[in-house]
Amino acid sequence: MRKDELICGIHPVMEALRSDRHVERLLVRRDAGGKGIQELKNLARELGVPWQPVPVEKLDRLTTTEHQGVVAFISQVAVQDLDGVIAQAYELGEDPLIVALDGVTDVRNVGAISRSAECFGAHGLLVPKTGIARLGSDAVKSSAGALLRKPVCRVDDLAVALERAREHGLRIIAVTEKAEAPIEHSALEGPLVLVVGAEDTGISPVILRKADALVQIRMAGSIGSLNVSVATGIALHEVLRQRTAKAIH
Amino acid sequence: MRKDELICGIHPVMEALRSDRHVERLLVRRDAGGKGIQELKNLARELGVPWQPVPVEKLDRLTTTEHQGVVAFISQVAVQDLDGVIAQAYELGEDPLIVALDGVTDVRNVGAISRSAECFGAHGLLVPKTGIARLGSDAVKSSAGALLRKPVCRVDDLAVALERAREHGLRIIAVTEKAEAPIEHSALEGPLVLVVGAEDTGISPVILRKADALVQIRMAGSIGSLNVSVATGIALHEVLRQRTAKAIH
Repeated sequence: MRKDELICGIHPVMEALRSDRHVERLLVRRDAGGKGIQELKNLARELGVPWQPVPVEKLDRLTTTEHQGVVAFISQVAVQDLDGVIAQAYELGEDPLIVALDGVTDVRNVGAISRSAECFGAHGLLVPKTGIARLGSDAVKSSAGALLRKPVCRVDDLAVALERAREHGLRIIAVTEKAEAPIEHSALEGPLVLVVGAEDTGISPVILRKADALVQIRMAGSIGSLNVSVATGIALHEVLRQRTAKAIH
Repeated sequence: MRKDELICGIHPVMEALRSDRHVERLLVRRDAGGKGIQELKNLARELGVPWQPVPVEKLDRLTTTEHQGVVAFISQVAVQDLDGVIAQAYELGEDPLIVALDGVTDVRNVGAISRSAECFGAHGLLVPKTGIARLGSDAVKSSAGALLRKPVCRVDDLAVALERAREHGLRIIAVTEKAEAPIEHSALEGPLVLVVGAEDTGISPVILRKADALVQIRMAGSIGSLNVSVATGIALHEVLRQRTAKAIH
């Protein structure tokens, strides 16, 4: 972990929370009290930043600087507004293409997905603030830097954000083994959000219900399931294949 | 690492080399001499098993058993004969589909590729004995067990093996950024070997020259390159898409 990803101490963490630097989460000493810590917790709750009580030894292991019972993880990844990312795509005369991750927890998968999103011209990633891999230096490395170049929209509630995307004219396409329609027979033109789900459980039911269409990546047998970053790459390639075919005809 | 992946001591290692258990490589104490060690080295050379001189401390860290200056890594992955794997596919009335890895060195990539190979009905993996990620428990885990179910053909010389596959009627298709033909416009029916290359340098020139066709995965921009396991998944999906489309029409 890079040292500059950590901010330590009550005042610096408060500053970070109030600035536009993205604080991913706070670790707070389990038995910490006092007015400063309480203010921090309130502010974090207000901003939707998760915080976690930990033994003081954990904080001591993370940093040698005076932490006063609180450490904040800062993301290198710039966070952008979903409305803005969609508007920008329309302004470029392009059909917005957003990749939404519902609970992908492995940093390397998130990295590889970002990398594919960049390669296939997606306009941004849409991720929930919690239940997702930390977008730290390991994820950035796995993304071959794509996470630093592609807009990432972090939202409190993915279901609400998908509704919002729909209001902007995007169709919500869930890539799931529960679908019956093969992706290559599904129309993937026009403004889209492609949704993929967690490594183990797939897309959650509440998110599946938000989808306009469910599509499946057909396989040759009954054994096995694809890695989520591979599945996302296949879906993105299929979107580009269909868009290019349409542009030619 | 699982304990049962190691075999220690001159006699047990000799036995392992002579049996059909797959010895991946030997670590030999740097200053080890004597007749036993010399015999081992000769046998390893004869069988094409790589060996590496290491300080004795490295061996001591690997095992608490008496190693006599030599430790062998055993692969859990069963190794099969390329001719046999191809023949078996033909016997099933299927077009053989083999995925060849030229220098993929990341265990997680090899794992994910095996997993995709299984999902899309490839008949086996073809890998060189050296210059490839170790097919140990990490690779097996990343493959979600596919490496234990799919045949893996390990060969001394990948170029020679590709020639051999061609003699059996397989076309050699290299998936490479150096190609101009988009994969979705390339005919991928019939017996095939799909070749993918190393994470950093891609497919080596000597292997590229063996290819009957070079195909490219088109991207939307000039930035970025795909993760090799994602690229392989896309190529395998495209093979299945074309085969299925042909079966319908």
